[in-house]
Amino acid sequence: MSQILDQRVSATHVSEETTEPVSMKFAARMRNLHTSEIRELLKLTEQPDIISFAGGLPDPSLFPAAQLGDILREVAREEGAATLQYGKTAGYEPLREAIAARLARTAGISVDATHVMVTNGSQQGLDLAGMLFLDPNAPILCESPTYLAAINAFRAYEPRFIAVPTDDEGMLPDALEAIVAQEPDIRMAYVIPDFQNPTGITWSLSRREQFMRILSRTRIPVVEDNPYGELRFEGVPQPSLMTMDTKGQVIGLGTFSKILCPGLRIGWLTARPDLLAQFDLLKQGTDLHTAQITQACVARYLERHDIDAHIRHVREVYRGRRDAMLDAIRNHLGSSVSVTHPEGGLFLWMRLPEGMDARKLLAVCLVKKVAFVPGESFHPQGGHRNTMRLNFSNMPTERIHEGIRRIAEAIGDVSPAASLGI
Amino acid sequence: MSQILDQRVSATHVSEETTEPVSMKFAARMRNLHTSEIRELLKLTEQPDIISFAGGLPDPSLFPAAQLGDILREVAREEGAATLQYGKTAGYEPLREAIAARLARTAGISVDATHVMVTNGSQQGLDLAGMLFLDPNAPILCESPTYLAAINAFRAYEPRFIAVPTDDEGMLPDALEAIVAQEPDIRMAYVIPDFQNPTGITWSLSRREQFMRILSRTRIPVVEDNPYGELRFEGVPQPSLMTMDTKGQVIGLGTFSKILCPGLRIGWLTARPDLLAQFDLLKQGTDLHTAQITQACVARYLERHDIDAHIRHVREVYRGRRDAMLDAIRNHLGSSVSVTHPEGGLFLWMRLPEGMDARKLLAVCLVKKVAFVPGESFHPQGGHRNTMRLNFSNMPTERIHEGIRRIAEAIGDVSPAASLGI
Repeated sequence: MSQILDQRVSATHVSEETTEPVSMKFAARMRNLHTSEIRELLKLTEQPDIISFAGGLPDPSLFPAAQLGDILREVAREEGAATLQYGKTAGYEPLREAIAARLARTAGISVDATHVMVTNGSQQGLDLAGMLFLDPNAPILCESPTYLAAINAFRAYEPRFIAVPTDDEGMLPDALEAIVAQEPDIRMAYVIPDFQNPTGITWSLSRREQFMRILSRTRIPVVEDNPYGELRFEGVPQPSLMTMDTKGQVIGLGTFSKILCPGLRIGWLTARPDLLAQFDLLKQGTDLHTAQITQACVARYLERHDIDAHIRHVREVYRGRRDAMLDAIRNHLGSSVSVTHPEGGLFLWMRLPEGMDARKLLAVCLVKKVAFVPGESFHPQGGHRNTMRLNFSNMPTERIHEGIRRIAEAIGDVSPAASLGI
Repeated sequence: MSQILDQRVSATHVSEETTEPVSMKFAARMRNLHTSEIRELLKLTEQPDIISFAGGLPDPSLFPAAQLGDILREVAREEGAATLQYGKTAGYEPLREAIAARLARTAGISVDATHVMVTNGSQQGLDLAGMLFLDPNAPILCESPTYLAAINAFRAYEPRFIAVPTDDEGMLPDALEAIVAQEPDIRMAYVIPDFQNPTGITWSLSRREQFMRILSRTRIPVVEDNPYGELRFEGVPQPSLMTMDTKGQVIGLGTFSKILCPGLRIGWLTARPDLLAQFDLLKQGTDLHTAQITQACVARYLERHDIDAHIRHVREVYRGRRDAMLDAIRNHLGSSVSVTHPEGGLFLWMRLPEGMDARKLLAVCLVKKVAFVPGESFHPQGGHRNTMRLNFSNMPTERIHEGIRRIAEAIGDVSPAASLGI
């Protein structure tokens, strides 16, 4: 990736019959992007006999596949001329309206269709937000740890990540205030206040209020990523940051991936209309629009079926799995580790004894046919080697028990000296 | 979008109850991106009573909607656990294989599935190519004129466009050679050798050879965009630049949008596997992967139905429309204008009498309920005001005749002095 070959100017000296692949010069951003070692390792977890707590997959047995299939057929047959044709960048109008109505009803967020853009999953919302706000070396605030794929999406725009110290209730207000006062050019705050990926924690009401109070004194856009908010198993729902926003500062990201299915790639981005127009410009360039047929399918699903009843069922199943995982950890690992107690979502976070390396543990676990994601990957600046993320949504409870038992065994193997406290 | 507000440090002086939307600082790239005046104007063409030659839409009555609908239902019901779940970034394996096999069979391009990535239409391929290769101010070569949405996709990466002089056979080799010798850091050559958008012209064999001879002496990646290649009405098919590539230098973009339908958003990108791995990294960040269900639908359609027979039918229809448009132009405008004679594709290009402004003409035409796209938009550096693009694929022949008649009338209104030569 160095300089263009010198021989270009004296080009005729180069043989034209070479079959050696030419090495090309890449954009500067590619320095920041590498296939992660972990991703390579996790490819091993795709073997069917592995008990995987590694991915973030919803359970496919919960997808309303027959209903979606029937609707897809109808939509193609009845509205094919529209839904198989090019469409508007901001999205299929009936779906934009349905998303806005649902946000108003379920989360008290006052938006209408003009605030909603349909995206290819909320991942595309992350990319577009990075594209709109980030320049090389400009700071971006995030939780510590934070969502791996968000870090990767933003890295393409070469920002400087500032991890705000975060505890079990959210970002620490004093630390946040100090950073905001010191850094003059912060371009974005990226947060996941509900059942965060990777930790499973949820911000308390008072932390939400303090966060918004500090941020509302600035011009910093807040990207509130909320893929799991509707998967609450217990406790009191906390208000979305969007409902506390008096300055059109919060950009919301949502998705049907966890409440319906991910394979349709339907997510959304909400923002005030003048900002949405900027996102529209960017999405035009990146892919023109999201598939019309899948958008129409979700719109008709919402019209015809009771998604709230469906979500209640999904919640029950995942709650049982979270309970199974917490039980298994208590039984097999006792007080030698600490874990979060997520009130919803797909993940919990485990801290191993100090000095233990979750990467090394993973290597041992893979031999025992059980997998998770080491926590270091979720920290933009690395470190925190004794942490790990465990996903509980895609394994039945007996496999969860067995998987945690194997992890406990592996911990024993890796560190026979460590007292497991049981 | 100037500097961050100074009061941040003394934040308490700012009222927290303001409801004025906060003005945010955008990334530098946003300076280059604006809602085009033309795009706003063309929104008017969405009225159903307008005869529109403005878009680039395939005719929706040709979509195999019932077949696609039936397949979507089957795929969801039979393979829902896989096709409604998250998938691989590079694409749904059976579709990658089918695309590779089809490229080998129909275009003699030697690729297998490891060379193919599925994208959200070929527009996403443009974005990913820009992301991989372009840095601010680095030169990119393109035809003059070239595809509007490609210019917009690349603009997000702030390159410097170098329009290579182009005639009816392709880029002029001497001009290309001189530019390549003078510019030390060219990052990409973007070309549409078959039935180009906007002009409809096709590069001759000898120009293809000369282009590849010149480029093969360099490290410059060649992005060959080929959305229309299969829609040839007459004449001899020309080889894809990929078949002349000895150095893994050509990246191919293709799409099902024009041969099947655009609303599924299924395109592809072909590249040698080490480059494909870089595109994979970037696509992970931008949207994880393309919808599985629509990919599986296209794969099964290719397996079950005869897409070549379908394409032959599409070709016949579009050929009739091209003929109708060329006839109408001859009848109503005679020698006062010059037009290209496209051997395929969706577009032709018209040059108005010198000094006439196609934008002004469009304003008059919209009153007469007929629309086209002024040619200036397709030139990265502007100019060429007396040119326009006409799309013939989405209007029946009688509407084509009537539309061209109205344009001729408008030309008379705009420039009563201009002899129309009839």
